[in-house]
Amino acid sequence: MRWFAICAALSPIASASALPIQPSTPTWTVDEVLAIPEVTGVGLAHDGQSFAYILRIADIEKDRPAFELHILDLTNRRDRIVIRSTWIELVRPMPGKASWSFLADLGDGVQLYAFDNSGRVSPLVVNGDTILTGNADGAEVGYTFTGPLRIGVAFYDWSPDGQHLFYSIVRPGRFERRTRIDDEVVGAGLNRRPAPPVSVEFFHRKIGGEPIRIATAQGTDKVARFLGGLPVWHADSVDFGLQTGDRGHLRMTRYRWTFGDRAAVPLANAAPQPAGSLARGPQGGLLSVEWVGEVRHLLEHRSDGTSIDYGPTSLSISDPRSTGNWSAPGGSFTITAVRLAEAARYALLRIDRSGRTRLIQGAESLRHCDFSPDLAQGVCVNEGLTRPPRFVAVSARDGRITPIRSVSPRHDAIAPLRSEARTLTNRYGFKFRTFILYPRGFRPGKRYPAIIVNHGNDADERFAAPDMQWNYPVQVLAERGYVVALVNEPYASQSRILQAANDSWTGCDGKTAPSEVRRLIWLNAVESFRSIIAALDAESLIDPGRLGIAGYSYGSQLTNVAVTQTNLFKAASSGDGGYLEPAAYRSRRCGYGAIYGGPPSDPLAYPDYVAFAPSFRARFVSAAMLQQLAEPWEGAIDFHQALEAAGVPSEMSLYPGETSASDETHLFHIPSNQRAAMQENIAWFDFWLRDIEPPIGSDDARRSRWNALRDKHQP
Amino acid sequence: MRWFAICAALSPIASASALPIQPSTPTWTVDEVLAIPEVTGVGLAHDGQSFAYILRIADIEKDRPAFELHILDLTNRRDRIVIRSTWIELVRPMPGKASWSFLADLGDGVQLYAFDNSGRVSPLVVNGDTILTGNADGAEVGYTFTGPLRIGVAFYDWSPDGQHLFYSIVRPGRFERRTRIDDEVVGAGLNRRPAPPVSVEFFHRKIGGEPIRIATAQGTDKVARFLGGLPVWHADSVDFGLQTGDRGHLRMTRYRWTFGDRAAVPLANAAPQPAGSLARGPQGGLLSVEWVGEVRHLLEHRSDGTSIDYGPTSLSISDPRSTGNWSAPGGSFTITAVRLAEAARYALLRIDRSGRTRLIQGAESLRHCDFSPDLAQGVCVNEGLTRPPRFVAVSARDGRITPIRSVSPRHDAIAPLRSEARTLTNRYGFKFRTFILYPRGFRPGKRYPAIIVNHGNDADERFAAPDMQWNYPVQVLAERGYVVALVNEPYASQSRILQAANDSWTGCDGKTAPSEVRRLIWLNAVESFRSIIAALDAESLIDPGRLGIAGYSYGSQLTNVAVTQTNLFKAASSGDGGYLEPAAYRSRRCGYGAIYGGPPSDPLAYPDYVAFAPSFRARFVSAAMLQQLAEPWEGAIDFHQALEAAGVPSEMSLYPGETSASDETHLFHIPSNQRAAMQENIAWFDFWLRDIEPPIGSDDARRSRWNALRDKHQP
Repeated sequence: MRWFAICAALSPIASASALPIQPSTPTWTVDEVLAIPEVTGVGLAHDGQSFAYILRIADIEKDRPAFELHILDLTNRRDRIVIRSTWIELVRPMPGKASWSFLADLGDGVQLYAFDNSGRVSPLVVNGDTILTGNADGAEVGYTFTGPLRIGVAFYDWSPDGQHLFYSIVRPGRFERRTRIDDEVVGAGLNRRPAPPVSVEFFHRKIGGEPIRIATAQGTDKVARFLGGLPVWHADSVDFGLQTGDRGHLRMTRYRWTFGDRAAVPLANAAPQPAGSLARGPQGGLLSVEWVGEVRHLLEHRSDGTSIDYGPTSLSISDPRSTGNWSAPGGSFTITAVRLAEAARYALLRIDRSGRTRLIQGAESLRHCDFSPDLAQGVCVNEGLTRPPRFVAVSARDGRITPIRSVSPRHDAIAPLRSEARTLTNRYGFKFRTFILYPRGFRPGKRYPAIIVNHGNDADERFAAPDMQWNYPVQVLAERGYVVALVNEPYASQSRILQAANDSWTGCDGKTAPSEVRRLIWLNAVESFRSIIAALDAESLIDPGRLGIAGYSYGSQLTNVAVTQTNLFKAASSGDGGYLEPAAYRSRRCGYGAIYGGPPSDPLAYPDYVAFAPSFRARFVSAAMLQQLAEPWEGAIDFHQALEAAGVPSEMSLYPGETSASDETHLFHIPSNQRAAMQENIAWFDFWLRDIEPPIGSDDARRSRWNALRDKHQP
Repeated sequence: MRWFAICAALSPIASASALPIQPSTPTWTVDEVLAIPEVTGVGLAHDGQSFAYILRIADIEKDRPAFELHILDLTNRRDRIVIRSTWIELVRPMPGKASWSFLADLGDGVQLYAFDNSGRVSPLVVNGDTILTGNADGAEVGYTFTGPLRIGVAFYDWSPDGQHLFYSIVRPGRFERRTRIDDEVVGAGLNRRPAPPVSVEFFHRKIGGEPIRIATAQGTDKVARFLGGLPVWHADSVDFGLQTGDRGHLRMTRYRWTFGDRAAVPLANAAPQPAGSLARGPQGGLLSVEWVGEVRHLLEHRSDGTSIDYGPTSLSISDPRSTGNWSAPGGSFTITAVRLAEAARYALLRIDRSGRTRLIQGAESLRHCDFSPDLAQGVCVNEGLTRPPRFVAVSARDGRITPIRSVSPRHDAIAPLRSEARTLTNRYGFKFRTFILYPRGFRPGKRYPAIIVNHGNDADERFAAPDMQWNYPVQVLAERGYVVALVNEPYASQSRILQAANDSWTGCDGKTAPSEVRRLIWLNAVESFRSIIAALDAESLIDPGRLGIAGYSYGSQLTNVAVTQTNLFKAASSGDGGYLEPAAYRSRRCGYGAIYGGPPSDPLAYPDYVAFAPSFRARFVSAAMLQQLAEPWEGAIDFHQALEAAGVPSEMSLYPGETSASDETHLFHIPSNQRAAMQENIAWFDFWLRDIEPPIGSDDARRSRWNALRDKHQP
């Protein structure tokens, strides 16, 4: 490949860049966090000369997210923006051409377009019958984490030879005016903004031919709606999946659409667990990592029902945070995106037909990769917890990684914070991974206030990943003199017992007792917090009297359990949660059955709620509790009211949507909200851990409100 | 008055009518119940010649409510329809003219119009900046109990001399994009369909002059938005109120707008409790019924701060089910709509300046009255539990009541069911009023299955009042062979202790202990059910092994308490409720504090929940429970799930709105839903009390579902 020769000849670019950077010595501020661009899609042109990618950025002026579609010319490292839009996703190279396809809203809702290297854009599939998606009145819940959006085309994929297109469109569903019964009533109450019915239609189109509808599914079918049916191509057919059942684990049934027969036939073999994508091995079978005895093995399941065992592995594949799977021509080897659980970083795994496997990895992560059709060379995003993302060339032959160009020179210009990754073992005997960010100008021997930021297992070698740090600006907190520990819970893949507890929780199989489910999941994470605090205290790095904890979503559960089951923390910020409270039982019976053994009104289950539901333990809390919300979750309100009743300082803040007809999303998407929420977290921890009064700003009442909370509750 | 002479000369019309009636001997069917027209507004022209009224009917073809504005010519008893619309309300005579004003949606949203006896309609106030109101996405919650509606003008009133118009308009409010804190977050989660902000503006217009804006309030101000500010006219000013505070009882501050000054000045005197309307006495002061020692007295509070005591009374005034207040010229006497608590019927009270008071009443109720300006003569609707409504002439002089014309000849044609009213004293020593409907063809000595229908104190001498019988077609149940007892709870006005318990509940004043609040309110009603059952059993009228109970809203609370605290009932239908369950604590802290003493997560309050919250007592229930819902209320779902877990037959049915963007309303408004819900109730009681399988109809699954419930739960 010509461009590889050119890349290999390049000197490492590190932070060198021709683009203007910040003057003087930039440090982390909330605005710098807000300005971090996120690569959300990549596509290497089949001629290998250029690389298209999507950047999600915050449009500060319009106070909304924006997307840019870039082309990076690999022959000269020049980068240009092809399109800006409120939505761009799924950029993919057009097989055999120096052009790409992508989904974007260019004014007619989200449709499928093609563009070539000259930047010319043309529509490929347009469905005028769009649906509104987002956290808004009249909108389907689409998990796009942006403002309300109109969607026509939802997903597409090219056959490897480029001769077939598989795609799905969404349509307004027919509202069936009928009385709903029992569990349907529970379902009707699930969303704050009741969603209209939506249908999903799968199409196959041979290039030059007419589209043929393959299947229709309801919008509630997650495999169809959000995973695009997880297509897998064969020479004369394409396999796709539809959701089966809804209890616990997501399941699917696979179908084969044969181009000649024009029929979708269910496949007899067991379907894999739906995930971010499906990965294939060199024998053409689907890859999976499964327990064999007490050890996890990498397996390939061929369509004839036989399997190949590539031996023990600690990797995970098909992690939604890093997907990708490429097959070399002739099936000599495949490359698959993988995650290293203990190291908490992302890499690539090459699997040869011979059975040999080899990791392609750097010191930090490789994500957002794409390879040329011959797999000789690829391009990835290389990033780490303190390394801003950059594009690198990756050799599938020898694993060599060569820098191409920075994604954000502005952030390269900030001197990296001192960081450190550790794997510790907690008192329950389970290993967990932690990343420590040191305060700027850290002086050994000085004890710093410290904040634990947690969200299950999202702390890893990614740069300011929004799903990890949410509205907790860990970089700014470190600049302000906090030790920040990004702590993962013990990873489930280290132990069959942990795996079983998680399966009991998500699949309510009843195999793990409620008290053990609680111990192995939430209390296990909290024990990990205790362990890292003990370690950092023993090193005289932190002041154990000034500890905070923050986490959103699943991390809010861990935060709420941490403050109700330990007295380690003096302040907490729990984001957009409420799970574990009795309030959610009615719609979460499977998981709550696993955690508590029954409904809160069951006298036999009630002691389990008393023992564990955060609001029932409010009187044991010593941390001032801030709950930032995208929606007025019942569980969050209940916890707040219980804390208030127990005399514990507590505040809820609900961040607004664009209008009264829409809400902020679980991952905040409105830049002014993100900024305000980050500032509120800083002010909250400063107030409770360092006695710094909140700045007089837009919210004049905050200072007096917090002072009143402190005065009222101070012993 | 000329028309009075004519009316007085008329023979009673009873069921005689020129309109076509049902062939053969009509009996009560669900369709007959659905066809009952409801008078919702009246206005007697100032010349006394004609009477305008509004009828709400079910438009079966369009499957929605419809409104008709009629003029009844009192000189010849001819009736004609002036306008049909999706919304008409507040018809009022134009002072000094043979014409009326009214609010209606004639295509431009709800605006203020005038029409004269010729039927010519002309706009008076039009506000093009309408708001959407109803139980729908993007709509303000307007309690109109119809489909989504656009509203421009919300309320109006004429000064007695007709020279001044007071009115309010609603406008889309400005959405304030700000973070909401603590209790505001609770408020944001209150409604299933989040409502946009709305503002209310009050205007004064002198006839021939320009409108002047008097005040602006938020749409959350219930006094401003729904009570129109409760205007009271004086010669040179008008008083109106705005809501003050929000905790417990609705309170208001009164303002005086003086026409000359053009200024609204707060009034120093204590404002009365907001109610459906304000009534004035012959001295020009506001009337109220208040406790004086252990007895209730009728008082008139003059604006100089002094009061007149008209002595002890058992009446209530300003009951929203019957409003109206008229002053004779020169202030010689006033007439006020009243309710007789023990008799559970409506009448008029004449209060003379001399201090003498006199009831104007018939055997049944007088409601929807209007009087000529000299109060010499009035027209009312006369109706009773089994008497279809008819218009009657009422003499303020001697209280004579003379029939004018039937409202619904179709229902006159159905032979009235045998009925009976009783006042009993329950075991707690409190009196309550009950109405018994006997089965058609009742045979003494035979024991019938029986159903109690309850809704607090809504059982009274009104004809098929929707707020009482909801989707429980008591007439059809009686036709089918059930004894139906419409049972009121003990009326609060009989005892200061009862009044205090209710005040503690609604105002959370802490003066009545939680266990007493529960005993004096819900358990007191349930004791009343027990008493009437015992009485009817003693008379061999009912079969105590085949008892059902039904109630919606507050009646659903009583129903749920009845089945969890007694084993009297074998089947129950609990409509659109869920209050008393822990789920509602977060938004109902005042009332729940009174009932339970604290949040369900408070270990000191928890035993009170165990003792009383229906879901906590699910294992004691012996009645099969149907819950019909307009919205998926959390408490209803929790109760259902608790019953299921306890092995008690339970079903929820959620009735749909017009589209996926709207819901059915608390009082059902969609005729097809009303019909289906009535049929479901009949089938439910037939199934559990009489072993009759549900008909195979639109819901094919019902029969097998109910059979499965019975088979699964049969001991």
